Amino acid sequence: MKKAAVIMGSDSDFPVMSKALVVLKEFGIPFEAHVCSAHRTPEETAEFASKAKENGFGVIIAGAGMSAALAGSLAAHTTLPVIGVPLRGGAQDGMDALLSTVMMPSGIPVACVAIDGAKNAAYLAAEILALSDEDLAKKLSDYKEEMKQGVLKKDAALQEKLKEL
Amino acid sequence: MKKAAVIMGSDSDFPVMSKALVVLKEFGIPFEAHVCSAHRTPEETAEFASKAKENGFGVIIAGAGMSAALAGSLAAHTTLPVIGVPLRGGAQDGMDALLSTVMMPSGIPVACVAIDGAKNAAYLAAEILALSDEDLAKKLSDYKEEMKQGVLKKDAALQEKLKEL
Amino acid sequence: MKKAAVIMGSDSDFPVMSKALVVLKEFGIPFEAHVCSAHRTPEETAEFASKAKENGFGVIIAGAGMSAALAGSLAAHTTLPVIGVPLRGGAQDGMDALLSTVMMPSGIPVACVAIDGAKNAAYLAAEILALSDEDLAKKLSDYKEEMKQGVLKKDAALQEKLKEL
Amino acid sequence: MKKAAVIMGSDSDFPVMSKALVVLKEFGIPFEAHVCSAHRTPEETAEFASKAKENGFGVIIAGAGMSAALAGSLAAHTTLPVIGVPLRGGAQDGMDALLSTVMMPSGIPVACVAIDGAKNAAYLAAEILALSDEDLAKKLSDYKEEMKQGVLKKDAALQEKLKEL
Amino acid sequence: MKKAAVIMGSDSDFPVMSKALVVLKEFGIPFEAHVCSAHRTPEETAEFASKAKENGFGVIIAGAGMSAALAGSLAAHTTLPVIGVPLRGGAQDGMDALLSTVMMPSGIPVACVAIDGAKNAAYLAAEILALSDEDLAKKLSDYKEEMKQGVLKKDAALQEKLKEL
Amino acid sequence: MKKAAVIMGSDSDFPVMSKALVVLKEFGIPFEAHVCSAHRTPEETAEFASKAKENGFGVIIAGAGMSAALAGSLAAHTTLPVIGVPLRGGAQDGMDALLSTVMMPSGIPVACVAIDGAKNAAYLAAEILALSDEDLAKKLSDYKEEMKQGVLKKDAALQEKLKEL
Amino acid sequence: MKKAAVIMGSDSDFPVMSKALVVLKEFGIPFEAHVCSAHRTPEETAEFASKAKENGFGVIIAGAGMSAALAGSLAAHTTLPVIGVPLRGGAQDGMDALLSTVMMPSGIPVACVAIDGAKNAAYLAAEILALSDEDLAKKLSDYKEEMKQGVLKKDAALQEKLKEL
Amino acid sequence: MKKAAVIMGSDSDFPVMSKALVVLKEFGIPFEAHVCSAHRTPEETAEFASKAKENGFGVIIAGAGMSAALAGSLAAHTTLPVIGVPLRGGAQDGMDALLSTVMMPSGIPVACVAIDGAKNAAYLAAEILALSDEDLAKKLSDYKEEMKQGVLKKDAALQEKLKEL
Repeated sequence: MKKAAVIMGSDSDFPVMSKALVVLKEFGIPFEAHVCSAHRTPEETAEFASKAKENGFGVIIAGAGMSAALAGSLAAHTTLPVIGVPLRGGAQDGMDALLSTVMMPSGIPVACVAIDGAKNAAYLAAEILALSDEDLAKKLSDYKEEMKQGVLKKDAALQEKLKEL
Repeated sequence: MKKAAVIMGSDSDFPVMSKALVVLKEFGIPFEAHVCSAHRTPEETAEFASKAKENGFGVIIAGAGMSAALAGSLAAHTTLPVIGVPLRGGAQDGMDALLSTVMMPSGIPVACVAIDGAKNAAYLAAEILALSDEDLAKKLSDYKEEMKQGVLKKDAALQEKLKEL
Repeated sequence: MKKAAVIMGSDSDFPVMSKALVVLKEFGIPFEAHVCSAHRTPEETAEFASKAKENGFGVIIAGAGMSAALAGSLAAHTTLPVIGVPLRGGAQDGMDALLSTVMMPSGIPVACVAIDGAKNAAYLAAEILALSDEDLAKKLSDYKEEMKQGVLKKDAALQEKLKEL
Repeated sequence: MKKAAVIMGSDSDFPVMSKALVVLKEFGIPFEAHVCSAHRTPEETAEFASKAKENGFGVIIAGAGMSAALAGSLAAHTTLPVIGVPLRGGAQDGMDALLSTVMMPSGIPVACVAIDGAKNAAYLAAEILALSDEDLAKKLSDYKEEMKQGVLKKDAALQEKLKEL
Repeated sequence: MKKAAVIMGSDSDFPVMSKALVVLKEFGIPFEAHVCSAHRTPEETAEFASKAKENGFGVIIAGAGMSAALAGSLAAHTTLPVIGVPLRGGAQDGMDALLSTVMMPSGIPVACVAIDGAKNAAYLAAEILALSDEDLAKKLSDYKEEMKQGVLKKDAALQEKLKEL
Repeated sequence: MKKAAVIMGSDSDFPVMSKALVVLKEFGIPFEAHVCSAHRTPEETAEFASKAKENGFGVIIAGAGMSAALAGSLAAHTTLPVIGVPLRGGAQDGMDALLSTVMMPSGIPVACVAIDGAKNAAYLAAEILALSDEDLAKKLSDYKEEMKQGVLKKDAALQEKLKEL
Repeated sequence: MKKAAVIMGSDSDFPVMSKALVVLKEFGIPFEAHVCSAHRTPEETAEFASKAKENGFGVIIAGAGMSAALAGSLAAHTTLPVIGVPLRGGAQDGMDALLSTVMMPSGIPVACVAIDGAKNAAYLAAEILALSDEDLAKKLSDYKEEMKQGVLKKDAALQEKLKEL
Repeated sequence: MKKAAVIMGSDSDFPVMSKALVVLKEFGIPFEAHVCSAHRTPEETAEFASKAKENGFGVIIAGAGMSAALAGSLAAHTTLPVIGVPLRGGAQDGMDALLSTVMMPSGIPVACVAIDGAKNAAYLAAEILALSDEDLAKKLSDYKEEMKQGVLKKDAALQEKLKEL
């Protein structure tokens, strides 16, 4: 299977971005993770993206806050799908990062998920890689069913709680 | 190659969403397009998404405005990657649709692109499908080179224009 | 009297949504409450709404955060009045949920109340059910008078506090 | 059947608010419409709301822009359900009116619909009145089916259009 | 001298609104303070404003949060200048209250100050009453000079702090 | 009677700000109007405000767009009440000007009216000056009655229009 | 004198960005202008910035819309001051570009001016270059005096216009 | 070398603005710091800016919150580059200060940095002063290299952390 890359603009983003790593691990998706900054290590960022395809990656997840140029910078140097995770942390609670990540110019798409949505970035990566991996597709279906059962259990638990109201 | 689906919430979305169709056609990606509403034809929406995988689709693009539940509704019924295009049209110039599309709960990702970003939705779909299709990957690389040449030409043209300043 | 339904997207919404339950109980309105997710249990959501009328419900209250498709999803499957409660919790302090809940397309109305406005959702449900129940209408009038007396008492208390200024 | 009231803050709101009147007429719901201002005719506004119930009204629709106090002012004087329609027109494209209309204090609910959502206000009124009128409920179901057929027809028409792409 | 009125929508607004009272007291401006709600005690609110002029008031300060109709409701019933203080407290950190307070329709002005700007509301009231009271005008000039001296002192203190840098 | 000053940051603001002049004229309030810029003629702005009181002014109206420092700059140099009119014109439709005008620091109040609310600025000025001028107070009461009659007439006209619906 | 560079993300930005060129020309500042895209020609962008200092540039002006990564991308590759001009054009009227341009991470500053503020970008560039060029400093002082005289003339013209009111 | 001035509107801004002082000190840039208020000490503010050039300053950094007129007020009185730092602190988390600082009228530029971006203001000041000081330019290059090495080290550390995942 192709690898997923998880790039974060700073190591302070690890607590949020590691949630993506946990999901990737659970699904058995091989991955690499790197601290890489669009503004502080632009050459390294460019080089990583340029060689990502030949290095066996199939999808890149990038999390960054504030001006959040990371996902776009990576997308500028590859034709692999790039998933952007806008991070909270600036004064605008992630709205700045959301707009920076999602409002990409034509021809250079970024697949933006919710603010701090690192888990969904990983699920989206799994959905993309599952297109050519039926085992992974099966795991995604199973997870979907699990989520459903989880809601049904919570509903059952709520019925108990209501008796005490 | 797997097909791409382009779903729009209303036929009034066609002028924007057809830009995605044009791109898909240029890249030779087989596609279907449908008017399908999360709120007015919820069963049809659910059924389309539920059967999309077995019907040969690899990716779903969904464009909707205002409350913009379409992409999320489709994502709720499939493990295929769903790309959401928030559309302008309400009083909030698409900000309502952007937030509705991108702020998905954990486990049900939507890959959100820019407001009215139908073209980028198609490029993103191509990037996803290209993971198992080297011809398509080549077309994407060529397109990227073309875009670059386009900018360089525009820069050359600007130099001419500057002489008249 | 017809029943009220209180649907919440997650059991983590209970602390806010239970305020609606308390009000319904105080007014003697029969109710059911369920955890039901537009995105994780879409079939169950659809089925609940589709059968709500024949199951004796007169009004549905739905609370959800972020992309907040729950109220709209329920409204898509019923002609009962659906009251939406946008919940805080995402990075945008409920503004995302507010826009997702209120900006519904024509023909599928949702009665939106304030962010975290679960109590008002219940009062609104009571007002709706009171149209065919004079006892309930009387309770609402009494409550309104009580609120007025509460303000007058607070004003009296303020006059005491002012003496110490 | 109880009457619906449609109150607008200014006669310049008629082009939008008349869409509610058309819907009410189509559903055969008796209605009155008035220009009534929370700020310019506050006594008349208060009096209308105070006597609305005894005057045979079952629901009040109120449309206003900018500071948009009208729906709340009416709700302050009645226990009938009040539906608020925030109107565009100020510099903030209706966001001011939306927040003024929806962010009501506890105990005085307003059922807020989308910016300029006069039609949905009428459908919501119909849903409320239909709770004690099976004929009206039937009309609402029929209308829902019609909307569905409308979408299906548009989808069929889209298939034709796609052939020319 | 004419009196100032300080009206607050709820006694929970006292911690902020009492700052206005302290300023009024310091300037020797006679005042009354009341809890009075546009939505819960609309008649009392209307009556207070209607009789404010004949009761010896010269200016009314009104603080309210969220939908914040209080200042506008008072202004609807008087030709005295009404100063509105939008209060934080809702999910939108006072932006809802600011827009509700400031976006008044033509003919019914409200003098809006900053979110939680109760102190400035009192200074503004003092400026208004000082137009016919030279003693009060002198106090305002003195206060302005005091503020200036305060800044100069802080600048001097900063010079000390810089030595330790 | 004391004079009103109407200051605008640029002559391009005249179409909006002249509405204030018309109201002042109708009420017989003596006024002066000036183009005066907080950023381009800061000394003249400071001097005008510093001498406004001794020059017979009782209130200053200031309209400016974008960064909108004018009202605050004037307020910094006078203890007369300053009314700020945030003007549309920048990319943010006046929201920038609104926040710049209203969010004044403690001790330097500005009475902010709605975006482009020049008319209300003049009515507010009239209310302020009327505190020591019973004739003007009478004119304001008459105007309020006129507005009320205007709404009642519009309501009557609406009744005619409804017959044609 | 060192040169100014004016970089625009697309030739469609020329109508706005050419205003900067006109100002630079009036002040006699040597300049180059280029179309250069952070996302479509990232290598060229990086190279231009990396060599800007040795190529005789003293300041770089960069205008871009939407995700607006251009100014930051240039700043990542140079220690010359970079001035960012956020451009309107996306659905959010330049607010997206403003936040993307101004919210830079620590260590990589961008000097952001107003949305579409190309003229001010050029004035700022002139102020920066004038630090080591007294002639240019003199031109800036003269321009400031001119602006002042312009306002005074407009004020005089206003006095004429007022006579016709 | 020319001096940098760091002006703050209040001594409560010191914790943020002192970060600029630390950077200036590290780079060996001579500086002065002052508390100076656009609204409370407008004459002192005007005088400081007017004489800044002859007093040996080359750049002015100004930090202020809420209405944030400080940077613009200084820019109105000098042709030196003025860097504005919008500060958090009001109800709008610095968005008010950002818009007030950045949306300057043509001819009076302010170089705006991120909300609370005092460090970047100092780096920008260093970049400006380095145009005529090769030693300072060298320090900036070294700092850029240091930042890069910092990111590379963090990436190496992340690889260790990943082993424990």
